[in-house]
Amino acid sequence: MKAVKIGILGLGTVGGGVVNVLNRNAVEISRRTGREIIVTRASARDLNRERICDTQDINLTTDCYDIINDSEIDIILELIGGVTLAKDLVLQAIDNGKHIVTANKALIALHGNEIFAKASEKGVMVLFESAVAGGIPIIKAIREGLSGNQIQWLAGIINGTGNFILTEMRDHGRDFADVLAQAQALGYAEADPTFDVEGIDAGHKLAILASLAFGIPLQFEKIFTEGITKITRADVEYAEQLGYRIKHLGIARKTEQGIELRVHPTLIPERRLIANVDGVMNAVLVQGDAVGPTLYYGAGAGAEPTASAVVADVVDVVRMLNSEHPNTVPYLAFQTDQITDIPVLSSDQINTAYYLRLNAEDKLGVLAEVTKILADHKINIEALIQKEPLEGEITLPVIMLTQTTLEQEMNAAIAKIEALSTITGSVCRIRLETLG
Amino acid sequence: MKAVKIGILGLGTVGGGVVNVLNRNAVEISRRTGREIIVTRASARDLNRERICDTQDINLTTDCYDIINDSEIDIILELIGGVTLAKDLVLQAIDNGKHIVTANKALIALHGNEIFAKASEKGVMVLFESAVAGGIPIIKAIREGLSGNQIQWLAGIINGTGNFILTEMRDHGRDFADVLAQAQALGYAEADPTFDVEGIDAGHKLAILASLAFGIPLQFEKIFTEGITKITRADVEYAEQLGYRIKHLGIARKTEQGIELRVHPTLIPERRLIANVDGVMNAVLVQGDAVGPTLYYGAGAGAEPTASAVVADVVDVVRMLNSEHPNTVPYLAFQTDQITDIPVLSSDQINTAYYLRLNAEDKLGVLAEVTKILADHKINIEALIQKEPLEGEITLPVIMLTQTTLEQEMNAAIAKIEALSTITGSVCRIRLETLG
Repeated sequence: MKAVKIGILGLGTVGGGVVNVLNRNAVEISRRTGREIIVTRASARDLNRERICDTQDINLTTDCYDIINDSEIDIILELIGGVTLAKDLVLQAIDNGKHIVTANKALIALHGNEIFAKASEKGVMVLFESAVAGGIPIIKAIREGLSGNQIQWLAGIINGTGNFILTEMRDHGRDFADVLAQAQALGYAEADPTFDVEGIDAGHKLAILASLAFGIPLQFEKIFTEGITKITRADVEYAEQLGYRIKHLGIARKTEQGIELRVHPTLIPERRLIANVDGVMNAVLVQGDAVGPTLYYGAGAGAEPTASAVVADVVDVVRMLNSEHPNTVPYLAFQTDQITDIPVLSSDQINTAYYLRLNAEDKLGVLAEVTKILADHKINIEALIQKEPLEGEITLPVIMLTQTTLEQEMNAAIAKIEALSTITGSVCRIRLETLG
Repeated sequence: MKAVKIGILGLGTVGGGVVNVLNRNAVEISRRTGREIIVTRASARDLNRERICDTQDINLTTDCYDIINDSEIDIILELIGGVTLAKDLVLQAIDNGKHIVTANKALIALHGNEIFAKASEKGVMVLFESAVAGGIPIIKAIREGLSGNQIQWLAGIINGTGNFILTEMRDHGRDFADVLAQAQALGYAEADPTFDVEGIDAGHKLAILASLAFGIPLQFEKIFTEGITKITRADVEYAEQLGYRIKHLGIARKTEQGIELRVHPTLIPERRLIANVDGVMNAVLVQGDAVGPTLYYGAGAGAEPTASAVVADVVDVVRMLNSEHPNTVPYLAFQTDQITDIPVLSSDQINTAYYLRLNAEDKLGVLAEVTKILADHKINIEALIQKEPLEGEITLPVIMLTQTTLEQEMNAAIAKIEALSTITGSVCRIRLETLG
């Protein structure tokens, strides 16, 4: 059979990694697909920039449209990032009958519904394994590997930068700002770290995972997102003393009322495997009704791990091309006409446990006032630690773990606690999940 | 489209679990496949036995051949176990044009080459996700998710019974025989535990994983297998003191000389995620050249986790049936004509590090003799602990960790050490892998 021709949009870190993997593993990959795979064309903004890959056999251009309009090309790899140009290119490439592989989580999370509708109409494949958790085949695991289950919930460490920061804070007792600066210097964090540390990147990925797990539309805009910028060294240490680790999790859970979609710092019992996923590594824990808990772990970013997932998608397309039949695996795990818009719960309606830290004056009866407010809102306390005042402070840190409660009850209780004259400053609240 | 009809061979624990999952999750599953799936027929040895599943809509028979010869049935689930009858049934069912889903690791490991050849000829699918690591979609991960990689090695805890025993020995300082008896009482271990504790079951699974990873034929008979029966409580404790856990691992590694295929107790650094996989849980760590390390964790056995994988395979078949095209994903990850018979190394040729425990007389110069023998065989010592004699003993336990060496050098060195007049009994040797 003739070689399969690939056009790559964007020859940066990921694009370069893909070229390297396709070249280095060409024999192994064609043993798996039965076809030769050739990158014939690639686009780059600056043709003179130094590349991490060999480009001598690739016809380079600065114009992405040259590539998507090339009738010789079978598969387009969209690796330019961003959503405006990428969306236009992908839609036009689909219109031209090209199969698409993309690593662009924002594009899928924000415009996936439209892209898949068009792809379905044209009978082409759109694969996006590399868009979530880098090299971990988590999309395939949920879309195919767990397809006998009702997925009950999933929880993932799906942003390596955030996990690196939290790991460094714990391992070396360092402050957030200090570690962030180092992560930026090392190139793990962008100059503008908002996407990573505020949970927007994780939110894009969570929107995708939730759609695959529950058969709901992609709806990034309904995700509750809280970043890690307010986590203090003290919180990390108190959590540790109580047997927990703080991780920035994306959580999707199906309840009788609807779907919880949330990204926030979370205390997890330290004995859970996912609590021990450190540094820039990613992991996703998926709970199915039949299989129970399963965990998927690996590198969530980087040229080669991302390329691993991009190339796996290419292999899927090529294996399909061999039989010249239409796509059989639905884009979002469920058949297109079976995507159901189950309500996404507002953050008020989330059920979770909490870690609370407050600064109380060292006076008789303060704890009684606080615990009465919690009791009035039917919030049970699971553990309570009262610490000595920190050096130079006159207030006492009080740390509490609560049982699971409705977030709106907790919001109301916190407002009342903060209004107490014996409580200084605001209450630090971090959600807690046992993931058991 | 009309409903897909399933015939089940064997309605025991797994078969019953599959019926339950297909019934309970019928809506979710047909949302994923676009088709209704009905179990029309099932076979059982004793039709009057009580079942874990509802059988009122299933036409039951004691004759498996009734089912494979039923022209109405699209997919046969082979869940009877064993290799003789199972092989005959599967081959005949394939001849009849049925797609096959099997949970039978021994069948695939021992007769897979023949089965896939016949299936390829008839253009039917044979899926076996549940044959390795129960509900964990590890077959799909290797066959498809990591298909861009050269797999360098994989290491798995792929027998839950063995892992339960080792976990109990460590957590509660118990002896092997004692925990085995409890595991048998709990139903985790068979009355004849040989398959589990001697590594035969793990060997069957490793043969399958290695074939998928490297594109080599299934060759169970070439696997080096060592059980966990000789692991003592003392070894578990010494390993712990040195920062290691003992796990019964199946390891497949590609080297320049060939393929290492081995199942044996293994010391692993306790900080590795896989070292913390406890009880009956399974996990497989796969190292690809592009993706780096990835880990897959979940329940390796039980009615529902196994059913989860069986049903996922059914979903794969049904999604394919929708387009009435031939199978596009090769049975063993690589195209059939690309399976290469890379030599499997004999155990002599394995490269690994070691934990050694020996009983030495409390005399001057004993250690010098031992370490000279190791040095003569170019074996470097990484750590050495000399313990006080155990109560009532006159010899001293000496524990050593070595660097990586060729197994034949170690065999020769151990023979010489055991021949020393100052060494009592045999040398306990457990292999050690850093999995880094």
